[in-house]
Amino acid sequence: MTQIQVKAAVLLIGDELLSGRTQDVNLQTIAKFLAPLGVQVAEARVVGDVPEQMITAINALRATYDYVFTTGGIGPTHDDKTADAVAAAFGVAIDVREDARAILQAHYKSASPLNEARLRMARIPDGATLIANPVSKAPGFQLGNVFVLAGVPSIMRGMLEDVGHRIEGGAVMRSVTVRGKGVREGDIAKELAALEAATNDMVAFGSYPWFSPPDSFGVHLVARSANAAALEKAAADLARLIESRGVEPERLE
Amino acid sequence: MTQIQVKAAVLLIGDELLSGRTQDVNLQTIAKFLAPLGVQVAEARVVGDVPEQMITAINALRATYDYVFTTGGIGPTHDDKTADAVAAAFGVAIDVREDARAILQAHYKSASPLNEARLRMARIPDGATLIANPVSKAPGFQLGNVFVLAGVPSIMRGMLEDVGHRIEGGAVMRSVTVRGKGVREGDIAKELAALEAATNDMVAFGSYPWFSPPDSFGVHLVARSANAAALEKAAADLARLIESRGVEPERLE
Repeated sequence: MTQIQVKAAVLLIGDELLSGRTQDVNLQTIAKFLAPLGVQVAEARVVGDVPEQMITAINALRATYDYVFTTGGIGPTHDDKTADAVAAAFGVAIDVREDARAILQAHYKSASPLNEARLRMARIPDGATLIANPVSKAPGFQLGNVFVLAGVPSIMRGMLEDVGHRIEGGAVMRSVTVRGKGVREGDIAKELAALEAATNDMVAFGSYPWFSPPDSFGVHLVARSANAAALEKAAADLARLIESRGVEPERLE
Repeated sequence: MTQIQVKAAVLLIGDELLSGRTQDVNLQTIAKFLAPLGVQVAEARVVGDVPEQMITAINALRATYDYVFTTGGIGPTHDDKTADAVAAAFGVAIDVREDARAILQAHYKSASPLNEARLRMARIPDGATLIANPVSKAPGFQLGNVFVLAGVPSIMRGMLEDVGHRIEGGAVMRSVTVRGKGVREGDIAKELAALEAATNDMVAFGSYPWFSPPDSFGVHLVARSANAAALEKAAADLARLIESRGVEPERLE
């Protein structure tokens, strides 16, 4: 493809994601948020509340991808280590910053005072810009190409509202899914590969079998492309491929 | 802690996980499967159907962790590239193997013949041992410390039955969760950090705020340890910490 590809990485932070206690949903939210902006998530990593792990991952990812999004580890407790790790990764200082403190000061009242623990949420690396938090106020921040967001999904989603306008995207990848009930992917694999090869890298095809107990099954064929005409042709090709198995194709969006 | 720590990494493979089309659930399943065997998942990565990405990740993870588990990319279609990537990462040859072919031959009948595409699922790197697939027959495999599993969650879970007996685990980490409804983590953060520090790395404490719209909220305090006595003391400490806020603690399991 000749259009510009802009790629992002997502770094999910937290022991609870690795222990199995918590099921991550932020990766999917971020991927769906970025796609229409013309940014594809090309890699994700999950690390624990371990500064060395975070620093290594942040530096590897920000050097490789156009944007990096981190989630988790920016709360008031001792296991919230992300802001310090980002500062260390960039080699910059970090301290309580007045604009962030003012946001917290306006929010926390006498029943929930702005104590020493909560003030940790105003620690911002030098050179970062704040990311507004419309849900619980404590801000995220952007440093270079790294966006540091909360881990709680509702708060993370709220912060994305202050992220979109900072992104310079490229070609927008769109996808079409064609469903074939009762079709086995092994019966169409050869033809599918030939269809993809014929697009000269204009369209990427994916094949995803599905099973619905006790005995229903089929395949979802997905075409992804930044070129609208090529995508429409691909969708028609996929529908014909399903029809060739004697099955009525369903186009899903 | 003086007990042996055994650590694993999980590598989730598939464009569909990065595009947001599919919500991964395999990381959580693997983490919960490994925990009682005495293996902690210490890192996870998600990569696309891109051989170079897979090879880099496989080699980085297998050199760092005791075990690596991959999911996805071992089906019959052109976008299934995991087996070849594992062979390339280890620098070994790969070809259709007779024992794997025999398994497929016994399964695929005339209506779904063992064609060229399906025969790709019998491609096994030299030196690997097969992992039984009780759901759809096409096997996974183990090469060195790397376990290569299917991506479809029901099939992946089935394959784990043939994995447990191959694992040499270490200390089993157990956890206790204490719930405090109406407690804000910022009000107990200082005391929580002091409790963790007093355990001399015997217990790890995590703090996870929760919100239940419209106006219910609280915190889950989690203690994790391989030492049963230390964990019980930690649970009692956390319960007292919640009580100190005038709230009845709930112990969850």
